[in-house]
Order: sequence, then structure tokens, then C-alpha cells
Amino acid sequence: MKEEFLAIIERTLDEVLPKEGERPAELSEAMRYAVGTGGKRIRPLICLASAVAVGGKAEDARYPAAAIELLHNYTLVHDDLPAMDNDTERRGKPSVWAKFGEGNAILAGDALQALAFKAAANAPRNVAEIVAALGAAGVGVVQGQVEDLKREGGTDGASGGPASVPVEVVDFVYTHKTADLFVAAAAMGALAGGGDAASVEKLRTFALNLGLAFQYEDDLLDGDSPFPKEKTESLVHETTAAAIAALAGLPGDTSFLKSLSEKLVGRTV
Amino acid sequence: MKEEFLAIIERTLDEVLPKEGERPAELSEAMRYAVGTGGKRIRPLICLASAVAVGGKAEDARYPAAAIELLHNYTLVHDDLPAMDNDTERRGKPSVWAKFGEGNAILAGDALQALAFKAAANAPRNVAEIVAALGAAGVGVVQGQVEDLKREGGTDGASGGPASVPVEVVDFVYTHKTADLFVAAAAMGALAGGGDAASVEKLRTFALNLGLAFQYEDDLLDGDSPFPKEKTESLVHETTAAAIAALAGLPGDTSFLKSLSEKLVGRTV
Repeated sequence: MKEEFLAIIERTLDEVLPKEGERPAELSEAMRYAVGTGGKRIRPLICLASAVAVGGKAEDARYPAAAIELLHNYTLVHDDLPAMDNDTERRGKPSVWAKFGEGNAILAGDALQALAFKAAANAPRNVAEIVAALGAAGVGVVQGQVEDLKREGGTDGASGGPASVPVEVVDFVYTHKTADLFVAAAAMGALAGGGDAASVEKLRTFALNLGLAFQYEDDLLDGDSPFPKEKTESLVHETTAAAIAALAGLPGDTSFLKSLSEKLVGRTV
Repeated sequence: MKEEFLAIIERTLDEVLPKEGERPAELSEAMRYAVGTGGKRIRPLICLASAVAVGGKAEDARYPAAAIELLHNYTLVHDDLPAMDNDTERRGKPSVWAKFGEGNAILAGDALQALAFKAAANAPRNVAEIVAALGAAGVGVVQGQVEDLKREGGTDGASGGPASVPVEVVDFVYTHKTADLFVAAAAMGALAGGGDAASVEKLRTFALNLGLAFQYEDDLLDGDSPFPKEKTESLVHETTAAAIAALAGLPGDTSFLKSLSEKLVGRTV
């Protein structure tokens, strides 16, 4: 299923992004550069698989899937800026601002966010709820980022793992900065696939827990967890289990989402 | 009609913006500071009046009206950044980055854009077309800005009126940087008010011309028109006349839009 999903995602991103050379050419180029090709595309995969999990078709969720990837990538472009994390590299290549300049990077990120919503509006049904879900995530991810920058003691400089952070702060940051986009991906996919309210809710619960597991696992890999290693490991397992448990009773095929959750624990995806 | 419209706009902006103190408090404060209160609100006024012009109710367009003002204000927040126009003041007060820091200004702008789409999704009908119109404007306004910064010879420093710019470049910049938001305001209002396709199209034509007139008039006031003064004056009059002409045949009350267009020529609004 994964190869088929990835083909849908890359095709739809290519369709909605400005064509190469579209005026102004440097903006179109920066937007395409930011989104890249062949990334892991975890959030859009969740979106398509959520449509399938409610008994719908993956194709029905292709515009919301592209939308969540565009939104995710805009946040990376802005996170890398000198006034934020000041990162000159991303995925082993120059970050957007390092390559295109700071002003163009701010603007390319802005255009990617607008394009995300424009793409989401092409969903075949439930557009109002889909856009509301994406909008909530778009606000939430910024709320999480602001709180996170505060936790790191300012909006400048590299991020690092503070020794001691209150659990409720970590919870707020991880829920919003990371999990909100997972939740929107799943909810939009379920809505685009024609899922009922109960199914959408199950998938929201799934994605919240998966997003938290993803972030805890990230902390372990980076060695900068705000908690002792054993506690973080047990949080990864608890949230992964909660994610998988939330899939019970969905009317469609949930094998992809289950498998994704299991792989995530060992971070083989 | 204007006072009634302004009351709807301020009430709806207050409703959709994060409450004072909502976590993270500095983000909520920066977002509210950016939007302010009691501004001219030209774009949301056009939105509400467009709903009335198609025979609908102003109230039906209140969320799209708030949305276009949020989008407009996010562009101002980002335009003022050091990497862009580097303005420390806006409307006689410190600009958002000067008051809250550069990172927080980038993030507050980002959150305002997301909030704009979230608000637009609350429209009572035609949400897919409304969000598509807002999304197109959100991309277009950035395309216009990138082209404009190029015209000014870079993304840093204050804007100024270059002596000689090709007409087609001016046309591209003014159409996208300025008029796209006017067009979206009118189209969203017409769609929210239940207008048919022909009425929506008339109001798009109205708003494109009004947006251009607004920008030419702005150049005259600032003394930095890319054209000779006489040519710019005649462009203001031509586009204003074209805007008013486009209102003919609409099923509702167009008096507000006509009056707005007439006042705009002398810039008494």
C-alpha cells in the first residue's frame, strides 16, 4: 500500500505546487525546493491511510494529504530562519533561507501555508470540517513552537534539551508542536474518505498518541529527552499502544496505520 | 450601513482571535496587537457589502470578512520584518517585531494566516469556493510581494519608487500584491451571501479595479508612482469608473460599494 500512497502524494504535490518557472520564478523554485521529492511523507501517509481506515478511498484524501505536507514544510522553512533555530542545513542540503535568502524564505513559507489551504479546499466532501481541522493545526503548531522557544530560553540559537522541564509544559509543546499536525492529517483523511463522527474521533485519538510517540522517540534518537531515558522509553510504548488501541472498531482496513505505528517505535520508517 | 458593518467586523475579529492570556500569552497578545481595533477595515467592509450586493445579509459574510482582515494583517506583520522592509513603526506604533521580537513576529504572522482560513471555514455556505478564493489570494499576495521586492532591488531596506519600471511589471505587482486581497474579499462576500456565478464574477471585476485604483491613489499620496503624475491620476479615474460600472445588474443594494469607490478617489476613507 505504501508505494501506491507515496505515488499519490508526490503526484498531487507536483500538481498543486507552482510550475517550474511560474512567475516569480525564484518563489516557485523556493517552494518546490522546500517541499522536495521523495521524503518520508509520514503525515500525508497517515492522511491517505485514514481515508482507507474509514472504508473510503485513498484518492479521496489526496488534496488534504498534499495540504498537510505543505503545511509541515512551511513550518520547517520558518523554523530554520536566523531569528528562530538559525539552521543553515536541512536534510543534508542548504536550508531555504541559506539558499534563497531570508526574505524569500519567509515569503516561500507564507505561500506554502496559503497553498496548503487552497489544496485542502479541493477535497471531495466535508470541506468546511477539513479546513477547520487544518486551520486548528496551523494555529496549534505555532502555539507549540512559541512555548518551545520559551522553554529553550529565547527565539534565537540552536535547540537543546533542557535538563528539567515541567511535565505539563512538555505535554503542551509536544501536543501542539508535533501531534496537532498528525491529528489534522488523520481527521482530514477520515473526513475526506466519508467517515462518520465516531470514526473521525477514533482517528484523532490514534494520531494524537502516534504524534506523541513520534516526538518521544525523536528525543531518544537525539539524546535530548526532557525526561530520564527509561521514562521516555515507557512513554513511547504507552502512546504507541494507545494509538493502536484507538483503531479498534473502524470500518475499513487499518493495517497500514497499525504497521506504521509499530515501525515507528523502532523508527525504521 | 458603515457603522453596522464595522460593528460586525470588530465583534467577529474579537470572537475568532485567541482570548487575552490564552496560552502562550505572548503569542495571543502579539496576534491581537497586530490586528488592532478600529482600523479602516476596507477589505472586510468590501466583503460584507458584497454579500449585500448579491441580495444576501452582511452577517452571512462575517467570518470571511474577519478572514480577509486577518490575512491582510499577517502580510503587514511579515512585510515589516528586518529581512523585508525593516520598519520599526506601523500606524504610529512599534511594529510587531519591534515590540515582540523577530521570531515572535514571524510566528504571530504565521498563526494569523492559519486563523484566517479557520475563520473562513465558518461561512454558512460555499465554503470550498470561499477557501479556494482566500487561498488563491494568499498565494497571489506573496507572488506580488516577491516581484515587488525584486523591483526594489532586493529584500532588504525601505521601499521606494523606482524611476522607470515596465508597465507589465507594475501591473503584475499591483494586481497581486494589492488587488488579489480585494478580489478575494468581494468574491468571498458574494459567495457567503449566496450570489450566483455571474454576480460573483461582477464583484471580482469590481474589486480588481478598485484594488488597482487604491494602489495608484496610494502612489499619488506617497509621491512614488512609477508613472508620471498625470498618467497615474488618469489610471485612478479609469479603474474607479470600471469598478463602478461592474456593479451594474447586481440583484442587491450596491450603494455602499459605489460610495466607497467614489470616496477612494479622494481618499477620504
